[in-house]
Amino acid sequence: MKKNICIIMAMKSEAEPFLTQLKNFEKVNHNYHESLEIYKGFLEEKTVHVLIAGKSPSFNVDCIGTLPAALSTFIALRDFNPDLIINAGTAGGFSSRGAKIGDVYFVTSTSFHDRRVPLPGFQEYGVHHANINFDNKALIQDLGLKTGHLSTGDSLDMSLEDKKIIEDNQSNLKDMEGAAISWVAQTYKVPIYLLKSVTDIVDSERVTQEEFLENLDMASRNLSEKLVLFIRKLTNF
Amino acid sequence: MKKNICIIMAMKSEAEPFLTQLKNFEKVNHNYHESLEIYKGFLEEKTVHVLIAGKSPSFNVDCIGTLPAALSTFIALRDFNPDLIINAGTAGGFSSRGAKIGDVYFVTSTSFHDRRVPLPGFQEYGVHHANINFDNKALIQDLGLKTGHLSTGDSLDMSLEDKKIIEDNQSNLKDMEGAAISWVAQTYKVPIYLLKSVTDIVDSERVTQEEFLENLDMASRNLSEKLVLFIRKLTNF
Repeated sequence: MKKNICIIMAMKSEAEPFLTQLKNFEKVNHNYHESLEIYKGFLEEKTVHVLIAGKSPSFNVDCIGTLPAALSTFIALRDFNPDLIINAGTAGGFSSRGAKIGDVYFVTSTSFHDRRVPLPGFQEYGVHHANINFDNKALIQDLGLKTGHLSTGDSLDMSLEDKKIIEDNQSNLKDMEGAAISWVAQTYKVPIYLLKSVTDIVDSERVTQEEFLENLDMASRNLSEKLVLFIRKLTNF
Repeated sequence: MKKNICIIMAMKSEAEPFLTQLKNFEKVNHNYHESLEIYKGFLEEKTVHVLIAGKSPSFNVDCIGTLPAALSTFIALRDFNPDLIINAGTAGGFSSRGAKIGDVYFVTSTSFHDRRVPLPGFQEYGVHHANINFDNKALIQDLGLKTGHLSTGDSLDMSLEDKKIIEDNQSNLKDMEGAAISWVAQTYKVPIYLLKSVTDIVDSERVTQEEFLENLDMASRNLSEKLVLFIRKLTNF
């Protein structure tokens, strides 16, 4: 059966190596908002739409973060009829939990680290721990993917408050979109998988933003390679 | 001419006093997501839809914060054809900038305080300072509204990092939705106004969450009173 997959990505540079792998690749015209870029192509029998948050016309930088990611996911769900949402992107990794630069992870659960609401019940709502249901352990092994928990927040740096919640959740990875995409997809009861490629080590001496920029291209190529294989070999969704 | 207004609200308890003021009030059936509540009614010749983020079925608390608010705004813009978006809600106020509990503010500009991205260009994208265009100063005076800057973040408390950015932006108010709603509305070039009623004083000795719960009903009644008058008297939009 023909299957539709929507891939949610934040930065064009993260997406570029992957886009070149799609067959019958085309840009999709739309009137959602100025920064959003949508591409369509095929990987074997699967139809793939890639929604990239794109460049802010006001600030001329990529629309990273949870809000554009959540909107892209909602647009994908409403208008592209996906059988599956995949969030593919880069992330910081924690070396204390085994992450190395260039590793690609299959995310097994997500949470937020910058939604602190110390009121009864709201604390758990803020953190919003969500498991990703995926039974095909053999595929993860075949592709040499690591597995772990992803924590999401809207800052590239990490405050002491962020760090405490990240550690409470034993996070392997830290990004700026994943939990928001997972939240929207799960709200609409559509399966969501997340693949994250490590650009920088959060618990190292190096400044995150330097390391991020230095490794972005390499991490994006690794991500593309694993993402293509993941989609090709994926069955039963 | 008949005009459509969509009002975006976070908590049902913030919305209740206002909902009772609408004529031919009805609940709108929809299949967006389980927590979202939509109501329709009329204030004189204006059609009003109220979108309330509602209760999370998983956590049984109100879906406060930027993500549900951004989705509600997007749904309003795409499907309810509004001439105007209004975000009405409660906020913390800074007494050092003149805020008192129960005050209702017309917000003149918005920004975020929890999106720290120390990369060239991304810093300003994160803070995302946005002016609200509104010429009718007489209406603001007639209603006895205060005016000021609103800073938004996904935490009820305030970290040192949040505080620095809030002070850099000379914020009068702090909430958890406004800048996100303003971002979506402005992206779609639909006018957005924000009315915020003060539940707690952020720069006081008292614990925010206690003061918030204590004053929520009173602040919501004040908000409703001003919101009804604001919509009734509003022309030229």
